Amino acid sequence: MNKFKTLAPLALMIALPSLGFAQEAAEAAAEAGPVAGTDASSDSIFIFNSLLFLIGGFLVFFMAAGFAMLEAGLVRSKNVTMQLTKNMGLFAIAAIMYYLIGYNVMYPLGNWSIGTDETGGYLGAFGVAVLEAVGVTRDTADDYGYASTGSDFFFQLMFCAATASIVSGTLAERIKLWPFLIFTAILTGLIYPIQASWKWGGGFLDSQYGFLDFAGSTVVHSVGGWAALAGAIILGPRIGKYAKDGRVVPMMGSNLPLATLGTFILWMGWFGFNGASQLAMGSVGDVADISRIFANTNMAAAGGALTALILTQLLYKKVDLTMVLNGALAGLVSITAEPLTPTLGAATLIGAVGGVIVVFAVPFLDKLKIDDVVGAIPVHLFAGIWGTLAVVLTNGDATIGGQVISIIIVGVFVFVVSAVLWLILKAVTGIRVTEEEEIMGLDMAELGMEAYPEFSKG
Amino acid sequence: MNKFKTLAPLALMIALPSLGFAQEAAEAAAEAGPVAGTDASSDSIFIFNSLLFLIGGFLVFFMAAGFAMLEAGLVRSKNVTMQLTKNMGLFAIAAIMYYLIGYNVMYPLGNWSIGTDETGGYLGAFGVAVLEAVGVTRDTADDYGYASTGSDFFFQLMFCAATASIVSGTLAERIKLWPFLIFTAILTGLIYPIQASWKWGGGFLDSQYGFLDFAGSTVVHSVGGWAALAGAIILGPRIGKYAKDGRVVPMMGSNLPLATLGTFILWMGWFGFNGASQLAMGSVGDVADISRIFANTNMAAAGGALTALILTQLLYKKVDLTMVLNGALAGLVSITAEPLTPTLGAATLIGAVGGVIVVFAVPFLDKLKIDDVVGAIPVHLFAGIWGTLAVVLTNGDATIGGQVISIIIVGVFVFVVSAVLWLILKAVTGIRVTEEEEIMGLDMAELGMEAYPEFSKG
Amino acid sequence: MNKFKTLAPLALMIALPSLGFAQEAAEAAAEAGPVAGTDASSDSIFIFNSLLFLIGGFLVFFMAAGFAMLEAGLVRSKNVTMQLTKNMGLFAIAAIMYYLIGYNVMYPLGNWSIGTDETGGYLGAFGVAVLEAVGVTRDTADDYGYASTGSDFFFQLMFCAATASIVSGTLAERIKLWPFLIFTAILTGLIYPIQASWKWGGGFLDSQYGFLDFAGSTVVHSVGGWAALAGAIILGPRIGKYAKDGRVVPMMGSNLPLATLGTFILWMGWFGFNGASQLAMGSVGDVADISRIFANTNMAAAGGALTALILTQLLYKKVDLTMVLNGALAGLVSITAEPLTPTLGAATLIGAVGGVIVVFAVPFLDKLKIDDVVGAIPVHLFAGIWGTLAVVLTNGDATIGGQVISIIIVGVFVFVVSAVLWLILKAVTGIRVTEEEEIMGLDMAELGMEAYPEFSKG
Repeated sequence: MNKFKTLAPLALMIALPSLGFAQEAAEAAAEAGPVAGTDASSDSIFIFNSLLFLIGGFLVFFMAAGFAMLEAGLVRSKNVTMQLTKNMGLFAIAAIMYYLIGYNVMYPLGNWSIGTDETGGYLGAFGVAVLEAVGVTRDTADDYGYASTGSDFFFQLMFCAATASIVSGTLAERIKLWPFLIFTAILTGLIYPIQASWKWGGGFLDSQYGFLDFAGSTVVHSVGGWAALAGAIILGPRIGKYAKDGRVVPMMGSNLPLATLGTFILWMGWFGFNGASQLAMGSVGDVADISRIFANTNMAAAGGALTALILTQLLYKKVDLTMVLNGALAGLVSITAEPLTPTLGAATLIGAVGGVIVVFAVPFLDKLKIDDVVGAIPVHLFAGIWGTLAVVLTNGDATIGGQVISIIIVGVFVFVVSAVLWLILKAVTGIRVTEEEEIMGLDMAELGMEAYPEFSKG
Repeated sequence: MNKFKTLAPLALMIALPSLGFAQEAAEAAAEAGPVAGTDASSDSIFIFNSLLFLIGGFLVFFMAAGFAMLEAGLVRSKNVTMQLTKNMGLFAIAAIMYYLIGYNVMYPLGNWSIGTDETGGYLGAFGVAVLEAVGVTRDTADDYGYASTGSDFFFQLMFCAATASIVSGTLAERIKLWPFLIFTAILTGLIYPIQASWKWGGGFLDSQYGFLDFAGSTVVHSVGGWAALAGAIILGPRIGKYAKDGRVVPMMGSNLPLATLGTFILWMGWFGFNGASQLAMGSVGDVADISRIFANTNMAAAGGALTALILTQLLYKKVDLTMVLNGALAGLVSITAEPLTPTLGAATLIGAVGGVIVVFAVPFLDKLKIDDVVGAIPVHLFAGIWGTLAVVLTNGDATIGGQVISIIIVGVFVFVVSAVLWLILKAVTGIRVTEEEEIMGLDMAELGMEAYPEFSKG
Repeated sequence: MNKFKTLAPLALMIALPSLGFAQEAAEAAAEAGPVAGTDASSDSIFIFNSLLFLIGGFLVFFMAAGFAMLEAGLVRSKNVTMQLTKNMGLFAIAAIMYYLIGYNVMYPLGNWSIGTDETGGYLGAFGVAVLEAVGVTRDTADDYGYASTGSDFFFQLMFCAATASIVSGTLAERIKLWPFLIFTAILTGLIYPIQASWKWGGGFLDSQYGFLDFAGSTVVHSVGGWAALAGAIILGPRIGKYAKDGRVVPMMGSNLPLATLGTFILWMGWFGFNGASQLAMGSVGDVADISRIFANTNMAAAGGALTALILTQLLYKKVDLTMVLNGALAGLVSITAEPLTPTLGAATLIGAVGGVIVVFAVPFLDKLKIDDVVGAIPVHLFAGIWGTLAVVLTNGDATIGGQVISIIIVGVFVFVVSAVLWLILKAVTGIRVTEEEEIMGLDMAELGMEAYPEFSKG
C-alpha cells in the first residue's frame, strides 16, 4: 500500500482556503477509506490494552477449572469431593485476599513499605485494591497510557489464584481442609504478592538483578511448586504409597477424561496467561508479539506432550497418558518465562525439555519419598526453573547470573516461609487427617459427601 | 503523557502554507506515533461494540454447557441422559423461537403492538429477526452508532436461552421431555421476550418506573426462577423426597466433578453476561466500566462461595460442596442487577449475602415441600430478588419503589402465565412421568439410553 | 448521527490562521468526541485482524478438547484412556508437523513447487514456518494490510489439527496407537495442507474452478471424513459390531455427559472456526459479517439438533441423545462452507438438513458394515458435502459445477492417498490390535492404564 497516496485527502483539507470548503473536504477524507500508516488513536490503545487483560483474564480464570478437573481426575474417587471443594474454596479465598492485601503489596507504585524505588523495593504497600471511578475519562483514568485499573486487577488476580491451585494438587488426599485454606489465604495475600513485587512490581529483582520472567515460570509456577514442596515434605506421603520393601505403590487417578479435560483447559488458559503478559496490544509490534507468544506457547506444549509420549514408550514400552498430560503442562511452564523471543522451533525444543524433566522427575521424587499426587512439583517447580534458565538461550537481555540468583532468592523465600507456616499450622491445628480418615477417604470422613455416590468401587 | 506535545505534528500540518508541503507534514504526522488524547474512530467504536457482543455472546453461549454439566452432575445417574437431552434441546428451541418471534418482541424499536414508546410499551412487534445485509457500510448499517445487528442478536439470544436453562434444573428427574420442551418454546418465544421488552426494549418498566437491572437479576434470573417455581409446585416433588415422617430424604448428585465444572463454566460465562451488558466498549469510560464489571462479578462469586463454605461449616460442621457451588452462583446472580457501581468490597458483600440466601433457602424450600433438584430457585429467584433490591445500595439512580414494583410486576406476570401454561400442559399432555418410570429413571423409561451404561450402581 | 456536525472541530482547526491557535484547536478537537464517519486507522485494522485470529484460534484450539471429550464419551470405558491419548497425541503431532511442513505447503505465497500462481498451483513450498521478528513495525510486518503472521499461523494450525481429530473418532476401539499417530503426521504435514493449498492457498481449485468453501466444509471436514472412511474400510468393524444374523449390535458410549460437553465445546469453538474465517475485522462491513456468521452458525447448529430430536422421536418413538449431539455437529458442518450469505432462516434450514443426513446416514453406514464409532463420517463427510453444495443456494458467486468438481477432486485425492497410506501401514506395522487386545480393551492391552480404574463394570 502506498502510504502517501491515501494521505491526499488530509493534505487537500489543509490547502482549502475557507471554512466553507473544509466540511466538504473532511467529508471527502472520511470517505476515502483508511489512511495507511496511521497509529491507533490513544483511546483505542487504552481499549486494546484493557481488552487484552479482560480476555487474558477470563482465560486464566478458566485455568482454575482446569486445575480442579486435572486434580479431581488424578485423585482416587474417595477424595474427589474434597479436591473440588479445595479448588473452589482456594479460588474464592485468593480473590478476596488479593483484593484485601495482595494487589497493593504486589504493585506498590513507588509506595514501598520497605525499600524504595531507587533500591528496588522489598515490601509493597498495604491497603485494599481500589478501582477507577465509574465512567472515567482519559483525564481521570489512573493510567491512560496503559489500561484500566479494573482490567489489570482482574488479570493479575488470576495469576495469584493459579499459584494457589498448584499447591492443592501435590497435597491432595491427606491434608485437612481448613489448614489448607488458611495456608492459601497467606500464600495469596502475602507470600505470592511479596515475591511478585520484587519482579513485576518493580522491586529489587527487577531493578538490581535484571531478572527476566515474562509470564511467571518463577514468579507464579515455581512459587506454587516451592510451597507445595514444603508442604509435601512436612505432610509426609500418603499411607501405603511407599511400601516397606521400597516399592512405590501406584495410586491411579480415578477419572482420566477429567484429567485430560483439565489439561486442555489449562493449555487454552495459557494463551491468556502468556499472551496477555505482553501487557499491551495497541500497536503493530505489540499484537504481532502477542501472536508470536500464542504460537510459541502452543508449540512448547506440543513439544512437551510429544516428548513424554515418545519417552514413556521407549522407557516403559507403554505410553503413559498422565505423563503426556504433565508433559504438555511442563512444556507450557517451560516457555512461560520467555514465550516471545524463541523461534517456533526453539519454543518446541524448550517445551520438549520440559517433557523430559517430567518423565524423569516424577520417579525421582518418588525415590525421595516426596509424595506429589498430581506431579505438580516436576511440572511447576522443575520445569519452572528450567524455563527461567532457558530465557538466556533466546533473550540477549537475560544473564545467567541474574536468572540463577533470582530463582534462588525466590525459592529460599517461598520455601522457608511456607515451611514455617506449615509447621505452625501443624503445631496449632494439625494439617493431616487421621489414619482412619485417610483410609476411608476425605470425602466421607471430612465432608460426608461422595463425588460419585452411585458408582460402586471395584 | 503530555497531551499538547504529541499534537505538534497536527499543528505543524495546519501551519504549512501549501499543498506541496502538506504531504510531507502528513507523513511526519503518521510517523510521530500515537496522538495523545484522541478518540477511537467511529468505525473502531462500531467494531469494538460489536466485538464486545461477540465475545460476550460466546461466553454466555458456553453457559448452556455450564447449566448442562451442573444439572447432569446434580441429578441421579438414572436421569442424566434425560437432563442432557433437555439442555441440548432447550437451547436449540430457544435459538429458533428467539429468531422466529422473541427478538422483535423484545426490541420493537418503537413498533409496539400494545402501548407506544411514549407510554413505554407493553407488547412488542412480531416478525422474524432480520440481520443487516452482507458487507454493510457505515451508511447502510442498522445502527452505526451502536453495533452490528448480528452481534446484538447473537448476544441477546444467549440470555433468552439462559432463562430456559434455569427451569430445567428445578424440574429434573420427573418431568416429561416433550411438555418441558413445549413450555420452553413459549418461555423463550413469548414470556421472556415480553417481560424483557418492558425493561430492555424500552417498555413501561424502563420509562415509567425507572427500573434498573443492568444484566438481568430480575429480567433473566428471576424469570427463570419464577417459571421454575410455578412448575415445581404444579409438578410436585420427586417420589420419596419428602418422607411421611417429615424427613427430607437427600438425593445426592451423581457426579460432583461435573457439577463443579458446570459452576466454573457458568462463572466464566458470567463475565460475558455482565460485562457485555455495558453494551459499548469504544471509549475509555466504557472499557474501564467493563473492567469494573469483570472484577466485581468475580468478587461477588468469590463472596458467595466463601460465605457458603464458612456457613455450612458453622451450621453443619461439614462444608457442603453443592452449597459452595450454589453460593458462587448466587453471588453471581446477586451482582447481576448492578455489577458496575459497587466497589470491589461492596460487590464481595453483595455476593456474600447471595451465599447466605442459598444456605438458608434450600432447606426452607424443602420445608415447603417444593422440590428444586439443583437449587435453582434459591440461586436464581431469591438471589435475583436480592440483587435487584441491592441496586439501590450503590446506584443513586435506583429507587426502592421502582425496583420493588418491577420485581412484583415481572414476578406476577411470569408466575401466573407459567402456571397457566403448566396447568394446560398437565391437562392436555400430562407433564409428569408415571411412578414406575420415575423409579426406573427417565433415561431407560423415556429414552432407552443410559448415561453411564457400564458402571454398576452401588 | 449527523456526520457533518461532528467534523466541525477539524474544520475549525484548518481555518485557524496561526500555529499559536492550532494547539488550542487540536485540544478542542480531541475533546469534541469521536468524529463520525471515520475509518479505523491502518494500525487498528492490523490489530483487529490479528486479534480476530487469536480469539478464533483459541476457540478452535478448544475444539481439540471437544473432540477428545466427545470421543471419550462415546467409546466403551475399556478404550477411553487410549482415545484420550490419541487425541492429545494427535494435536501435538499436528502442531509440530504443520510447523515443520504444513504451513508453507498450504500457503506457498506464489512459491509453488508444482504449478504456478497463473495456473493456480498444485504443490506448495517446503520449509518450516517462520514468524515475523519480535517487535515488528508497520514497515517490517510481513503483511501490514492483513494481520500478523503469528496470528495467522496460530489460527490455521488449529484447522489442521481439527482435521486429524475427526479421524480418531471413527477408528476408535481397534486401531493401534502408533500407526494412527504416523498417519496423523502425514495427514497434518502433507495431505491436509496440499489440498488446502488448492483452495485457501490460491491453488487451482480457487483460481480455475471458482470453488467456494468459506471455512472448510470440504477443505477441513470432508477431508477428515474421507481419511476416516478409508481407514474404516481397511481396518474393518469392531468385533461383534455386526452379528452373523445381520443385526447391528449397539455399543453404547460409556459417558454421555462427556459427549455432551464435547459437543457444546465444539459448538462454541465453531464460532471461532467460521467467524474468524472472515479473515478481517477492521471495518464496519467485516465485523458485521462476522456477526452474521456467528448468528448463522448458531442457528444451523440449533436446526440440526432440533431436527435430529424430532426425527428420532418420530422414527424410533424415543429421542436419541447421541443423534441430537451429532445433529448439532452436522448442522455446524453444513453451514461451514457458507456461513455468511444465508439469512438466519436459511441457515437454520441448511443445518436442519444436516440433522436429517445424520439420522439416516448412521444406520446406512451400518448397513454397509462400515463401523464409524462416533458417527464422524455422517457428520463431517456427508454433511460436509451437503454444506459445500448448499453454497449455491445463497451465494450467487458459487457454481454447482465448481462445487461438485472440487468435492470430487478433494475426495478422490484424500481418499486414495489415505487408503494407500493405511494399506502401507497395515503391511509394515499392522494397524489393528489383536482380537484378545480388542476384547480386553485397548486401555489395559496397549497402555496398561484404565480411565476409570475404580468403577466396576456392570
